[in-house]
Amino acid sequence: MQVIESVAAFRQAHGGAQKPLGLVPTMGFLHEGHLALVRRARAENATAAVSIFVNPTQFGPSEDFSSYPRDMDADLAKLEGAGVDLVFAPTVDEVYPAGFDTHVDVGRIGARLEGEHRAGHFQGVATVVCKLLAIVRPDRAYFGQKDAQQCLVVKRLNADLNLGAEIVVCPTVRDADGLALSSRNVYLSAAERIAALSLHGALVLARELHRAGVMDADEIRARMRRLIGEQPLASIDYISIADAQDLTELDRIDAAALVSLAVRIGKTRLIDNVIL
Amino acid sequence: MQVIESVAAFRQAHGGAQKPLGLVPTMGFLHEGHLALVRRARAENATAAVSIFVNPTQFGPSEDFSSYPRDMDADLAKLEGAGVDLVFAPTVDEVYPAGFDTHVDVGRIGARLEGEHRAGHFQGVATVVCKLLAIVRPDRAYFGQKDAQQCLVVKRLNADLNLGAEIVVCPTVRDADGLALSSRNVYLSAAERIAALSLHGALVLARELHRAGVMDADEIRARMRRLIGEQPLASIDYISIADAQDLTELDRIDAAALVSLAVRIGKTRLIDNVIL
Repeated sequence: MQVIESVAAFRQAHGGAQKPLGLVPTMGFLHEGHLALVRRARAENATAAVSIFVNPTQFGPSEDFSSYPRDMDADLAKLEGAGVDLVFAPTVDEVYPAGFDTHVDVGRIGARLEGEHRAGHFQGVATVVCKLLAIVRPDRAYFGQKDAQQCLVVKRLNADLNLGAEIVVCPTVRDADGLALSSRNVYLSAAERIAALSLHGALVLARELHRAGVMDADEIRARMRRLIGEQPLASIDYISIADAQDLTELDRIDAAALVSLAVRIGKTRLIDNVIL
Repeated sequence: MQVIESVAAFRQAHGGAQKPLGLVPTMGFLHEGHLALVRRARAENATAAVSIFVNPTQFGPSEDFSSYPRDMDADLAKLEGAGVDLVFAPTVDEVYPAGFDTHVDVGRIGARLEGEHRAGHFQGVATVVCKLLAIVRPDRAYFGQKDAQQCLVVKRLNADLNLGAEIVVCPTVRDADGLALSSRNVYLSAAERIAALSLHGALVLARELHRAGVMDADEIRARMRRLIGEQPLASIDYISIADAQDLTELDRIDAAALVSLAVRIGKTRLIDNVIL
């Protein structure tokens, strides 16, 4: 496994690599959710590449960029174990050298939900993903469904800017108790972790109500809100039931719907979703 | 020479082509300025590619997109004569299919001069050039110095988004009387064409004043303004003497300076520049 820090060296390495090449872009501190993406990339491609880069531009000024968990040694051991060929682990200066001044924006799909609650977040995501796809030129790039809106943003920019990758979205990986895996789960105290189960609980409730024939989105949102409201440690950023393609908020669930939510558990902001 | 309209077919064609590949992006209605770029691309690369696409998104709503001159048959004959291998001539729908919603912006360098006078122009340019570089993946891409600010914008986005091309800027080609070649010159009446010579005249004056030791940028701007003001058919959009790298307007000419101007001759807007 080659671990490479510079864009130029990474270009040289993947230029000589066997194709197809699969890329898993990550911010490191890898958990089983990431490793599920890595295993799929490994299985489907002649060359498996992983990027590790905590991207400062997708964090807001009051967010957790500096405290975001990092553990490069553990990450590299996991990737070596998973049979990865190439790791791209650039510094911030390598990705954003002095004078950097170009930004990629995805319009409507990037404006709602996370885009509304985290100003500049998707510009940061879109710009760095555009760069990674341009540097690595993967045949396939793998993303987790847990970041559902991010998946839509990445598919949009990959198609619109003709970046030529196939975007593969993989199912959310959960702990046995239902909590979606996230590098941010390490922030949670024992009590907060119990409160955090309400996110998945609310999504399961939405699915059950929908299966039972409830089509009124507001009724489902209200029931989800009540369930999370029972946790004093939880504070809701948003609960959304939206068209799964264009993220238009729905009154009635008459097409594929993305039920998504963002909830603060103490200081930790968590997101999760299901598709109905 | 292969002429290809679809992104997918063009990808297939250049994937099998010999490298290095040189690309000349154009809006067609080719003149000797374009052909100088094409000949250089032909001389420096195993494969020479030209794109012809009048990009609607870089025209403002009151600008000349619909009347912009087009002559595909004549263009293809010129490119065939110049030994071009691949021509990419997509339709507007192929470049901007339904749902398209991603935009590339170059910050400071795109905001001044043409960016100030043509709202949205450089977003249109940056987005389409990003797409063309992603589709064609050229080793080198050739642009004309006549569009000096565009060259800076393209260099910036190519570096910032790691698009991997070498951006080659070629000298402005002029008619014998000094008028910079432009597809828009066909709009000019005989009287307007004479008035249009004042652009080059003002640039020559700037160079002469600078050579004679005038370092005060305002004095040079005023003399240029006066010279163009003698033409009743001419109306100045801007006259700029700016740092040639970052386009900061200069008081004194103590570094490489870009002297650029935009002037309306009747209904035709022309630009030109020199580097001091």
